[in-house]
Amino acid sequence: MKLYLLSLCALLFSPSAHAADGSTELAMNTGWVVLASALVFFMQAGFALLESGMSRAKNAVNVMMKNYMDGCVGGIVYWLVGFGLMFGANATGWYGMSHFAPSEGQPWDFTFLLFQMMFAATAATIASGAMAERTRYSAYLVGAVVISGFIYPVFGSWVWSGAYGGQGWLAKMGFIDFAGSSVVHGVGAWCALAGILVLGPRLGRFAADGTPRVIPGHNMSLVALGGFILWLGWFGFNAGSTLAMNESLGLIALNTHLAAAAGALGAVLALRSTASPVLLSTTVNGSLGGLVGITAGCATMQPGYALVTGLIAGFVVVFGMRLMDRLRLDDVVGAVPVHGLAGVWGTVAAGLFYSGDLFSWARVSVQLIGAGAAFLWAFPLALAMYLILAKTVGLRTSTQHEQRGLDYSEHAEAGYPEFNQALTYDGSELARRT
Amino acid sequence: MKLYLLSLCALLFSPSAHAADGSTELAMNTGWVVLASALVFFMQAGFALLESGMSRAKNAVNVMMKNYMDGCVGGIVYWLVGFGLMFGANATGWYGMSHFAPSEGQPWDFTFLLFQMMFAATAATIASGAMAERTRYSAYLVGAVVISGFIYPVFGSWVWSGAYGGQGWLAKMGFIDFAGSSVVHGVGAWCALAGILVLGPRLGRFAADGTPRVIPGHNMSLVALGGFILWLGWFGFNAGSTLAMNESLGLIALNTHLAAAAGALGAVLALRSTASPVLLSTTVNGSLGGLVGITAGCATMQPGYALVTGLIAGFVVVFGMRLMDRLRLDDVVGAVPVHGLAGVWGTVAAGLFYSGDLFSWARVSVQLIGAGAAFLWAFPLALAMYLILAKTVGLRTSTQHEQRGLDYSEHAEAGYPEFNQALTYDGSELARRT
Amino acid sequence: MKLYLLSLCALLFSPSAHAADGSTELAMNTGWVVLASALVFFMQAGFALLESGMSRAKNAVNVMMKNYMDGCVGGIVYWLVGFGLMFGANATGWYGMSHFAPSEGQPWDFTFLLFQMMFAATAATIASGAMAERTRYSAYLVGAVVISGFIYPVFGSWVWSGAYGGQGWLAKMGFIDFAGSSVVHGVGAWCALAGILVLGPRLGRFAADGTPRVIPGHNMSLVALGGFILWLGWFGFNAGSTLAMNESLGLIALNTHLAAAAGALGAVLALRSTASPVLLSTTVNGSLGGLVGITAGCATMQPGYALVTGLIAGFVVVFGMRLMDRLRLDDVVGAVPVHGLAGVWGTVAAGLFYSGDLFSWARVSVQLIGAGAAFLWAFPLALAMYLILAKTVGLRTSTQHEQRGLDYSEHAEAGYPEFNQALTYDGSELARRT
Repeated sequence: MKLYLLSLCALLFSPSAHAADGSTELAMNTGWVVLASALVFFMQAGFALLESGMSRAKNAVNVMMKNYMDGCVGGIVYWLVGFGLMFGANATGWYGMSHFAPSEGQPWDFTFLLFQMMFAATAATIASGAMAERTRYSAYLVGAVVISGFIYPVFGSWVWSGAYGGQGWLAKMGFIDFAGSSVVHGVGAWCALAGILVLGPRLGRFAADGTPRVIPGHNMSLVALGGFILWLGWFGFNAGSTLAMNESLGLIALNTHLAAAAGALGAVLALRSTASPVLLSTTVNGSLGGLVGITAGCATMQPGYALVTGLIAGFVVVFGMRLMDRLRLDDVVGAVPVHGLAGVWGTVAAGLFYSGDLFSWARVSVQLIGAGAAFLWAFPLALAMYLILAKTVGLRTSTQHEQRGLDYSEHAEAGYPEFNQALTYDGSELARRT
Repeated sequence: MKLYLLSLCALLFSPSAHAADGSTELAMNTGWVVLASALVFFMQAGFALLESGMSRAKNAVNVMMKNYMDGCVGGIVYWLVGFGLMFGANATGWYGMSHFAPSEGQPWDFTFLLFQMMFAATAATIASGAMAERTRYSAYLVGAVVISGFIYPVFGSWVWSGAYGGQGWLAKMGFIDFAGSSVVHGVGAWCALAGILVLGPRLGRFAADGTPRVIPGHNMSLVALGGFILWLGWFGFNAGSTLAMNESLGLIALNTHLAAAAGALGAVLALRSTASPVLLSTTVNGSLGGLVGITAGCATMQPGYALVTGLIAGFVVVFGMRLMDRLRLDDVVGAVPVHGLAGVWGTVAAGLFYSGDLFSWARVSVQLIGAGAAFLWAFPLALAMYLILAKTVGLRTSTQHEQRGLDYSEHAEAGYPEFNQALTYDGSELARRT
Repeated sequence: MKLYLLSLCALLFSPSAHAADGSTELAMNTGWVVLASALVFFMQAGFALLESGMSRAKNAVNVMMKNYMDGCVGGIVYWLVGFGLMFGANATGWYGMSHFAPSEGQPWDFTFLLFQMMFAATAATIASGAMAERTRYSAYLVGAVVISGFIYPVFGSWVWSGAYGGQGWLAKMGFIDFAGSSVVHGVGAWCALAGILVLGPRLGRFAADGTPRVIPGHNMSLVALGGFILWLGWFGFNAGSTLAMNESLGLIALNTHLAAAAGALGAVLALRSTASPVLLSTTVNGSLGGLVGITAGCATMQPGYALVTGLIAGFVVVFGMRLMDRLRLDDVVGAVPVHGLAGVWGTVAAGLFYSGDLFSWARVSVQLIGAGAAFLWAFPLALAMYLILAKTVGLRTSTQHEQRGLDYSEHAEAGYPEFNQALTYDGSELARRT
């Protein structure tokens, strides 16, 4: 630090001329993107708390371990290969091919890489929540590695490549996905959907006749805190995607906030309009749906439309959760409605509400192509991957392990060893009650 | 994001001349205020955790829902009308009249609006903690809407208007309230006081002869975490109120930190000096009192005085909590002492310890007028509002619902469904013991 | 705020000439360091949650109170004397002698002081976790005051002084410790080691024959959240140590992130390679070891080496925890392995992997001297201090208090009063089982 103090003094007392060169811009952008990266990193904690709170106490350690390690392992793999696939020189428009395991470069290269590592972790962790309480730990981590290192970055290269030459084919079409309603959240959600299809529902989640049964999460305070942390992190996620500290950040952050608030309100209105109880868990999911929804268009939409985008996203989440139930798909945290369905809506909304070119069918059709491409790329690949994992190392835990809880069977550590638990809500228990 | 990468490259490699124009300043201020807004937003989580931890487990979901939704609904209402009332063109000095539901504007307008939305949410959420465990959810939300959309912004216009023309009458008098000891915390606390007067105490909180009985909160870890998060957010709250990234931020943040530390110390000393146990909950409240206290004068005071301001605020909180008990007022989290009494003290301290003009009676008298105006405006209005709510839709839940807990009666969702609870501390239970 | 609005307008509309002078730099650096200070402050919450989660529920309030108050009391003492000892004019190279209780100065002085206060709090709080569940509250706070006000700042002056003249003797030798692997974490850990030597292990922690027995922590969700928060705060800790918003932040933050991820991975590999269960608590400690390890060299190392540094730190933590068990030292959170052993490794790694001068024995030997000096200064002093405390006011609680829990005996407040606890894991209980 000493050396820096000296160089700081040099900066403060040097002739002012140099302050006006490009280094001021570079310094500001670096400061901004590092802080935004820290905020996006913190979203990992938000995902972990949300998923933990919506799961049962017997799986609390497992949930935290998945969310702690998918960012670690996925982050390292993204650094090794994912970043190069996504942002490396992209001659064809379909994948990048340079900058693998980058350890040298200009200062900005490292800043940019840091931010992108955080994004990859977000995409990878979305599947975790959907597949909670019944997935083998090691198999889950393999999935996170493949998502971070291959599925996410290749799709990303279609939309966002260009930092080191080339342009993705979707970008060439004019596809708009500013911070990743489709690139991050769509891809993550379709991987999650594949995972829960391969896994099947938790024991007791659906009665023999298909009637869904609620398996309550063990800690609603953690769910709310997770929601607050995700909302906080999203300011970095969306406004950080400018990659620059400039005057546009205010509108982006305002749109982000309005859409989140409207998403929660939309979910509450959807629940009330169908005479359902206003659940905290669903309200939090509504705000997250609003955030996912505004992610694509946050930089190119007026605040009024951001509010509409979020409000509709709240409805999409509530009815999407019901659709999942009807299809007998067991998505523990509602990841597919929140990240997938609200992601598609947000991708479309970015075209519909594009400032200065409202309701252009041409734009909307490109947006639909992009959202569809995310599904067509991520879902079959993830399905194949999880099927292979299921056939080889095994994806789902044994019934006994699922009933005892993964904390016991996978980690030999209890989440709350001093507290009596009244009821472990395993399937057999619920089945007896019905 | 692609487009931004290109424009970034343009920035980095363009001739340096343009870096010195006003856009550098604007970019820096935008970056700063967006980050400060994110920190102030996170205070919502701090308030939620603090209130939840100090309440009983049977109300955990209700507490979280109130704090999650008052920011959402209040934020949208503030955008619709509150912002215009507070910062719109203020011809008379008593209220603004432009910029309602702003959806167009210069980039800075959106940044400024974002920050102010977060402040409005803070003012609205203060009442939540005081009125916990016995208020009907829908009536609470109506109150939050009125506070965010009318009570808070009108008082705010008296002190802070000017962004779009005009000046408030208190500002014209020279009233100093840099970040809102009175504007935000005083107004919030007087609304809270009105709420608890209309509601009355929780069942069993006072014995028949008026002796106060402690109703312990269910989770002290959440209380401490809430305190830490509020303290963190306050750096954005106070230093963000510069609305500019400049060299003054260091002193403001340092004063904020010293006052918070001294507030906790003051509370501990006050407890020890009266031979009371040193409670975590009261210590956290002491630090919050220090933060509220320094909010008005954080930019115009030397660090030594900030420490004194905080230390006294810690004493004010402890003795204020005892005064509330003596008056048989049931303030679950101590919102009135923390935000109201420490807010008045802080407003006075900003005058007393004004750098370069210490202990000026002229200043102090203007500060007293401002603090008094906050009470005279907010308290009667909020009292009328809560009385009307009580007479119409109903403000207090039924005795049965209060005993069962609001999670069951209002939300049909349990906070911790797997954990046996030893004792629900409802009034009837405590009454039997006495 | 009104005045600031006006001055803001002045800034925005003034001729652009002034933007290029030194004030732009100063403003940017101030903004950056204030935000980094806020992040470092938040690490206090991370330490509190980690320690609380790894302790038993009967000590939850005590743990939070220690972590809440050591920052407050230590911060005030650091402001009074520590800062002057550390950064005041340092004629001899062994201690500073000016700037005590600074209440006047240039704007930058306050910013710099704020950041350093947060660092001092970090050093002081490390001992808390190691000494948990058996230390008297008042004696603990006296220790925190001595560490913040004397032990930490004097060693700090040997490495980091210079802000107000002079240079420390270790700095003169070329010792590199960018953000404090030795200055903060080493010093804190050696104080912790002294504390646990004087205290002795918790009741029941080791069987009569010395076999270690696990005393599980009460809340693994808090442990994981604490880990996430510490990781988040470390971006401010390491990248904030530049004291400037400049283009170097990206590499520093990237190295920080890679080392943390690799530290967690290293711990998992170390556990798997010895056929031990992969515990969440140990995995979190692995990532913290990675963070401590990269702290010294984060600014002078390529990302590939940062990853290696973190990976090895993860192994160091796991085998260090086993060594502590073998030596019958009861370190509740693993503070000595995480902050001490990984700190030494990080200090060495900063020399080994110095960019442009790899594997230089000359550098490594200086690093070893610095790491050794930290031990030789902090450990004997802290040992003497804790011995004196033990002989005078008393350092360890009575057996009865330890069994009942410090929340009851020291604070008269229960952490979770509504929840039945199955087992309090006190020593007598465990002893009977063996």
